[in-house]
Amino acid sequence: MARIVITGGSGFLGTRLARVLLSAGELRLAGRGVETVSQVTLMDRVLPVADLAADPRVDVITGDLADAVGPGGDGRQALAEADVVFHLAAAVSAECEVDFDLGMRANLQATHTLLQACREAGRFPVLVFASSLAVFGRSDDHPLPAVIDDDTLPNPQSSYGIQKFICEQLLADFTRKGFLRARAVRLLTVCVRPGKPNAAASGFLSGIIREPLAGQRATCPVDPSTEVALVSPKKAIDALLCAATSSDEAWGGRTAVTLPALTMTVAEMVRALDRVAGPQASSLIDWVPDPDIARIVASWPARIRANRATRLGLAADDDFDSVIRMHISETGSAPTAVPPRY
Amino acid sequence: MARIVITGGSGFLGTRLARVLLSAGELRLAGRGVETVSQVTLMDRVLPVADLAADPRVDVITGDLADAVGPGGDGRQALAEADVVFHLAAAVSAECEVDFDLGMRANLQATHTLLQACREAGRFPVLVFASSLAVFGRSDDHPLPAVIDDDTLPNPQSSYGIQKFICEQLLADFTRKGFLRARAVRLLTVCVRPGKPNAAASGFLSGIIREPLAGQRATCPVDPSTEVALVSPKKAIDALLCAATSSDEAWGGRTAVTLPALTMTVAEMVRALDRVAGPQASSLIDWVPDPDIARIVASWPARIRANRATRLGLAADDDFDSVIRMHISETGSAPTAVPPRY
Repeated sequence: MARIVITGGSGFLGTRLARVLLSAGELRLAGRGVETVSQVTLMDRVLPVADLAADPRVDVITGDLADAVGPGGDGRQALAEADVVFHLAAAVSAECEVDFDLGMRANLQATHTLLQACREAGRFPVLVFASSLAVFGRSDDHPLPAVIDDDTLPNPQSSYGIQKFICEQLLADFTRKGFLRARAVRLLTVCVRPGKPNAAASGFLSGIIREPLAGQRATCPVDPSTEVALVSPKKAIDALLCAATSSDEAWGGRTAVTLPALTMTVAEMVRALDRVAGPQASSLIDWVPDPDIARIVASWPARIRANRATRLGLAADDDFDSVIRMHISETGSAPTAVPPRY
Repeated sequence: MARIVITGGSGFLGTRLARVLLSAGELRLAGRGVETVSQVTLMDRVLPVADLAADPRVDVITGDLADAVGPGGDGRQALAEADVVFHLAAAVSAECEVDFDLGMRANLQATHTLLQACREAGRFPVLVFASSLAVFGRSDDHPLPAVIDDDTLPNPQSSYGIQKFICEQLLADFTRKGFLRARAVRLLTVCVRPGKPNAAASGFLSGIIREPLAGQRATCPVDPSTEVALVSPKKAIDALLCAATSSDEAWGGRTAVTLPALTMTVAEMVRALDRVAGPQASSLIDWVPDPDIARIVASWPARIRANRATRLGLAADDDFDSVIRMHISETGSAPTAVPPRY
């Protein structure tokens, strides 16, 4: 019997992860073998989608995460029984940049409270943390190497990146002290995200694909020559599951694992869109520079030597055309919905 | 007029720093030129030494730091008026390893509260933070390079090191956001510390010099071949003052500056002791291995390529013999007090 908690369980990645876990029905637990997924507790500020809410194995805890897992919170019991905790809840990059206190509370304090709750429960769960490539930052006084690797010094250039990097440190020490077994995975820009735009600085990278596919206009705030590091939703979930199921030896340490990237320029992304959806698709993109977004995105690295992830069997997506096709087949976006432009 | 706050102001470094500042009577403030030192507020859990308490320019705030600088605390006013804040208060390495919650509270939460108080005051002070070489750690799954530099990825192997490294990140983001101007200096093992032993894992490195010089026995818990990175009290204070007075351009970024080291084996330290104090001195050292202390000390790097510090004009001590002589002349330790051993 495997009991699983997903914070941010109603978000895009949380929803996808829950569906994968429930559909598989079982999960390999390091040191215990394959176990039946008996309970998936979704913690989020909003309710999950209907198919998850209807699953008898799903429990739902709505509300602020720090309240839910703090002393007396209604998420304490699920956490105390959890074998695996996927910690995906976070305020995203652009909102943390606008509202410093929100990010400190939602990303840093809530994570600390979650770790403390796991420690106090004493069950030693595996905790998988969705960290971010945003821990790395290029700035005038601190150039990044052309290719980053597992030993590159992070120098975050956003509050979101700082908060993620601090959480990585907390995870490492809670693990070293034997309070839990935490693994931090640095996700790249997950693309193509379905659904509505969010307040992440990277949000447009999905928007410029998703919206044209649905026949809607999208805005691109950066130069077409901007290089970005992408990972598909499927590969992102693969990485979270790998972190949850790897042995300590295979995981190979307490520092974070950076994922292998599909490295593209925005121009190359758009050419792939036109190849897959027809040459009219990219005409729905409005190129409107936004210096604030451009600065944040340009501060992230795009080329990654992901040695630890590769040793774990994780690989980048083969090409962006197939990523777009995956999005179309999963969401039912019809390329033919793109109107011709005269 | 320069108003200065020193947290940990009754500690060994805080006391020395206060005396230097009051004795000089002036301090160069970046962008403002040389100003008269009009007020030095010492915050600590214990009272300062008599000469500092008697100085009319000295104010004393005793109690828990987070209480003193938190909302309604009696240190808020001094902080709100400060031009420079030296943040030296900390729980030390071995006590943080024994009492995890103490370290999280005294090192992490108190620093966060201090930064918030500076931000709320809105006066944009320079804040100098005593970080530590303990942010670096050697472990089985994460070897350190033979020589570390300003770009080496910290991988702390102690709660103290994790807390210091997290504070460096908080400082960087509070600075990036324009809430204050923080500079983190990674101090090495400060040696020879006068006074009584403390609970730092590195404490014995002063003890094996200080105690024999005073005719007392000392215990060395590590192998004589252990390499360590030392800095004299004088050079440590020089570095804190450099951080307080450098321009932003000269300081060169928001990441921490690691100090240049006098790199020695413990055996070489002991030979220097015998050269300075006579061949009987080291016979007062009892070599009693302590695996816990040895593990922490062995996890720290000993060789440092301190490029940023060197550009700032900071240099390692010339040799350990002169460091010992400095300790003798400052404390009145008489080498002749060492009894002969038959």
